[in-house]
Amino acid sequence: MTLRRQHPIPLYQQLEATLRARIESGQYGTHHRLPSERELALHFGVSRMTVRQALDALAQAGLIYGKVGKGTFISEPKIDQQLAALTGFSEEMHKRGQAATSRVLKAASVSAPKEIATALQIDPKARVFSLVRVRLANGEPLAVENGFLPAHLCPDLLAHDFARESLYDVLRNQYGWRLVRAQQTVEARLATPDELKLLELKPPAPILVMERVTMVEQGFPIEYVRSAYRGDRYKFNALLTPAA
Amino acid sequence: MTLRRQHPIPLYQQLEATLRARIESGQYGTHHRLPSERELALHFGVSRMTVRQALDALAQAGLIYGKVGKGTFISEPKIDQQLAALTGFSEEMHKRGQAATSRVLKAASVSAPKEIATALQIDPKARVFSLVRVRLANGEPLAVENGFLPAHLCPDLLAHDFARESLYDVLRNQYGWRLVRAQQTVEARLATPDELKLLELKPPAPILVMERVTMVEQGFPIEYVRSAYRGDRYKFNALLTPAA
Repeated sequence: MTLRRQHPIPLYQQLEATLRARIESGQYGTHHRLPSERELALHFGVSRMTVRQALDALAQAGLIYGKVGKGTFISEPKIDQQLAALTGFSEEMHKRGQAATSRVLKAASVSAPKEIATALQIDPKARVFSLVRVRLANGEPLAVENGFLPAHLCPDLLAHDFARESLYDVLRNQYGWRLVRAQQTVEARLATPDELKLLELKPPAPILVMERVTMVEQGFPIEYVRSAYRGDRYKFNALLTPAA
Repeated sequence: MTLRRQHPIPLYQQLEATLRARIESGQYGTHHRLPSERELALHFGVSRMTVRQALDALAQAGLIYGKVGKGTFISEPKIDQQLAALTGFSEEMHKRGQAATSRVLKAASVSAPKEIATALQIDPKARVFSLVRVRLANGEPLAVENGFLPAHLCPDLLAHDFARESLYDVLRNQYGWRLVRAQQTVEARLATPDELKLLELKPPAPILVMERVTMVEQGFPIEYVRSAYRGDRYKFNALLTPAA
């Protein structure tokens, strides 16, 4: 593969595409070291500035990461999750053969903050269970989930150990709720100081924010959850069809 | 609304929720100035540090923005776009009664880079049209779209003026293609230097990246497009149903 100077695509983007193709085809292994800037510049016959621009773009896309004094390494592929499937974190990780665990930061009964009550279609100040968890896959923190559930729909919910148990499994199997659909939004923003600490990230770190209202078959909401996923480790996919 | 010190939710999060509810209910108008940190601290009986934490969280969520020396202002609500609908930018803005325009940065015939050829299921080095546009709504730059289309499926495509015309309208009306579905991924990352300039953002800025392969009814791809949407102005929504 040679890069072409007389080409409408800038050199650094050609180099970025070349390296991206090699990374995505698995030619470099996960967590393996990339050749140095100097080596890449020599190999491709371009300036170190061009190499740096290409590497910056790949790092920002989450394909590579730097370790101070050690060089540049290949990231694990992002976890590619189907957006339209109403599944929980435990199920998604199980499908991938990864062990899903949680650190429970909070499990408490509180009176519903106003916008939570609105989302859950309950009286303001009604009791809700607040469940805040760091979600880990194979021990790596991937997301912070901040969930609220109406207490009257799942009394004694907090007797369960959500460090181990799947919330959706408990709702289905212990309370008999069928979760039939959810309305979800996806946004990008920077990690907050709390998220940086909990997800072991360095600022500035991009975060995918998912907000979900989950409905049971009777037609009312059972869960409002706001989740912060690591932008460098997660992507979502969806099948699009023409608007009705 | 009073904030409660003896409460499992930290004070700054209570304040954040209170201000969020007021902003989202429209109690403060778009682009109006929020009370100062000092005024908010007095009004709610909390420290300026608590106010600052709440405002930081709201700013990171894109609900407010600061102007140096002028104070803090209410952002426009994010554009909330249905993820599952296979529509283009022009159509989406038209539905909102906004004027969609484009700045065409590039419209050229190039030989397909390897990963583009793979996505489009064409021979490597086959001719593709490369169309790079900044998409604007009411004159505000919202996204950078980087699209590739197989040249043999839409000869003379570049004779059109994509500063004004909708690509999807041209594909449908001039070439008779029916766009029936697309596979799309959503990711979060930081804006590149190019994107910062084109989208008039200050670093670090979160970006929602959408990658889309659009199929025609005959079952092959007609478009591969990678778009960078401003994270502070865009969110996507989707309806979730149980996994099959």
